[in-house]
Amino acid sequence: MRAPEYFAVDMLFDLEEERVSLFIRDHSGEKVAIQTPPGLKHYWEEICDLCRRHGVMPVFFESNFGACDLADRRARLAGCSALIHYGHSDMGLRSEIPVLYVEARAKGIDVSGLERLLDIPEGARVGIFSTVQYIDYLQELSAIVRKLGGIPLIGRHGWRTRYDGQVLGCDLRSAISIASDCDFLVYLGTGRFHPLGVAAAVNREVLCLNPHVPSVKRIRPGEFLKRRMARIAESADAARWCVVTSIKLGQFRLGLAERICEYIRSHGRKAVLVVADVITPEMLEDFDPDAAVSVACPRIPIDDQDRFSFPVLTPPELRLVFEKEGAYVFDEVQPEDFKFSELN
Amino acid sequence: MRAPEYFAVDMLFDLEEERVSLFIRDHSGEKVAIQTPPGLKHYWEEICDLCRRHGVMPVFFESNFGACDLADRRARLAGCSALIHYGHSDMGLRSEIPVLYVEARAKGIDVSGLERLLDIPEGARVGIFSTVQYIDYLQELSAIVRKLGGIPLIGRHGWRTRYDGQVLGCDLRSAISIASDCDFLVYLGTGRFHPLGVAAAVNREVLCLNPHVPSVKRIRPGEFLKRRMARIAESADAARWCVVTSIKLGQFRLGLAERICEYIRSHGRKAVLVVADVITPEMLEDFDPDAAVSVACPRIPIDDQDRFSFPVLTPPELRLVFEKEGAYVFDEVQPEDFKFSELN
Repeated sequence: MRAPEYFAVDMLFDLEEERVSLFIRDHSGEKVAIQTPPGLKHYWEEICDLCRRHGVMPVFFESNFGACDLADRRARLAGCSALIHYGHSDMGLRSEIPVLYVEARAKGIDVSGLERLLDIPEGARVGIFSTVQYIDYLQELSAIVRKLGGIPLIGRHGWRTRYDGQVLGCDLRSAISIASDCDFLVYLGTGRFHPLGVAAAVNREVLCLNPHVPSVKRIRPGEFLKRRMARIAESADAARWCVVTSIKLGQFRLGLAERICEYIRSHGRKAVLVVADVITPEMLEDFDPDAAVSVACPRIPIDDQDRFSFPVLTPPELRLVFEKEGAYVFDEVQPEDFKFSELN
Repeated sequence: MRAPEYFAVDMLFDLEEERVSLFIRDHSGEKVAIQTPPGLKHYWEEICDLCRRHGVMPVFFESNFGACDLADRRARLAGCSALIHYGHSDMGLRSEIPVLYVEARAKGIDVSGLERLLDIPEGARVGIFSTVQYIDYLQELSAIVRKLGGIPLIGRHGWRTRYDGQVLGCDLRSAISIASDCDFLVYLGTGRFHPLGVAAAVNREVLCLNPHVPSVKRIRPGEFLKRRMARIAESADAARWCVVTSIKLGQFRLGLAERICEYIRSHGRKAVLVVADVITPEMLEDFDPDAAVSVACPRIPIDDQDRFSFPVLTPPELRLVFEKEGAYVFDEVQPEDFKFSELN
């Protein structure tokens, strides 16, 4: 793939200029909506130039936490006839206007350096997974595993992921589904959140390969689970609960939030149902809760807990507050989470 | 009016329990949406109890910056058939569902103590204005002015305010319209933002009476205008501009934002149009601008400037960047701000 003309040629991710141009030509009226991850917003001049070359006005939407955070409704309100969403794969949400997903896959990476970092016994089964940015390199990683004498396994994608071996913070199926068949679990990519989710979900160590450096790190679930169990224990006597969800299209698990309110009340506690956009400590603090359950992105309680002055649990963590036993379950978003409850 | 049963009897503001009850009975299906100012969110248990007594489930919406920040669209998405909006008067926005505005007017205040704080020459014309919270007390303040020998003047309300003498951050008409006929301008209420807006808009001193304490303070526009002119001067050479608006129903001045983008480009600078919900420094910093124009609530550039690492101007302030002369104009929201521009 050639470097996009409208970005610096050293750009690490493929922004698919030709596909973007065709989409603008085919789908856009006067205005086209743009969502980009933070790192790409800096290049707005180049995106504006591209749009204006096609006689279209770009309107940027600030937030882009995932394909769940689709600005389609807002884009339509702003008179945009189409949306270009950078950085994530289509998770199958029904949009109000046509959407082009530009997955921004990593390019030009030499993964051969990872070979010397892996120590795999002959015949070992190695489950590999990644985020969409590095999904193109899973086949090369498979070849390395095979060359080292191992047997690579790639799990089938889940309901929100698009590619086999791909994981999202809210859909870890492709890794979880093969874990019991594997001797090793290997994550290809950057960041801690995704491999930590898998490690916690299956209570196993995950090897993390960063293809850029290249480097290998081990992520074990022990410390994480200890911290989360401490939060769960802290919530045991909480009398006032906030149950908060986000209006973001793919995070609006209102049905589950309503059922959780009833569940908390059935245990003799108070619960208030709150709908936010971005969930911040400041906003929830106004409600002065003893504890909260976040029924939006699974990442919020995990990554942002230290910003909150009270425990913020995931839906499956809440169950451990009242039922006292059972294994730790990582929060994954399910289709039935979105269904409204009947009012009793 | 009697104290609402469902709140502490020392509540300083009238929450109109009976009107709320009737509204819920008449308009609400299974779920009713609630918006409250931050100070009232703490009382969610009482609001929940009231709703549940009528067999209705309350859904709280986090944000409530004004009647411009109406959660009607979100409420409808959450299956709510009606919305109770606390703390602001109806500014005439068309809502997708029925809305009850509970203005939360101050109650039980003894304003007689303000008399000794005012020093008014015989026959002086005194223009008085307030926010909706204290609007009930403007007549008592008029009587005090008359008793002291002055002539009270109350201006007619503007297009977004509902009561004569009422001001909003985005509609100062009731004060501005009478300023040239007055020897004194007197604000009844708390906070600096509203009287500062009037002082800056008419370049005059405003006396601020806080009825709770009671106390009097003088607000002069000089220091404020100096600070704003410094920001305007800082923007003179800015090459990369963010023009940001908010999707909040009454703040979504997209037409004006589009015209401002074109205006900036017509002066040979770059401009990107950004749509946000809550406008934060973090979000705009991703675009790495040299300066920004906020085309949402007029309060953002005025109150939040120090949080931003670059100048954030109001639309009328921007004009002074390129045209170099003309009086300072305070940003007031106008009906034509909302009309989309034609793409040139």
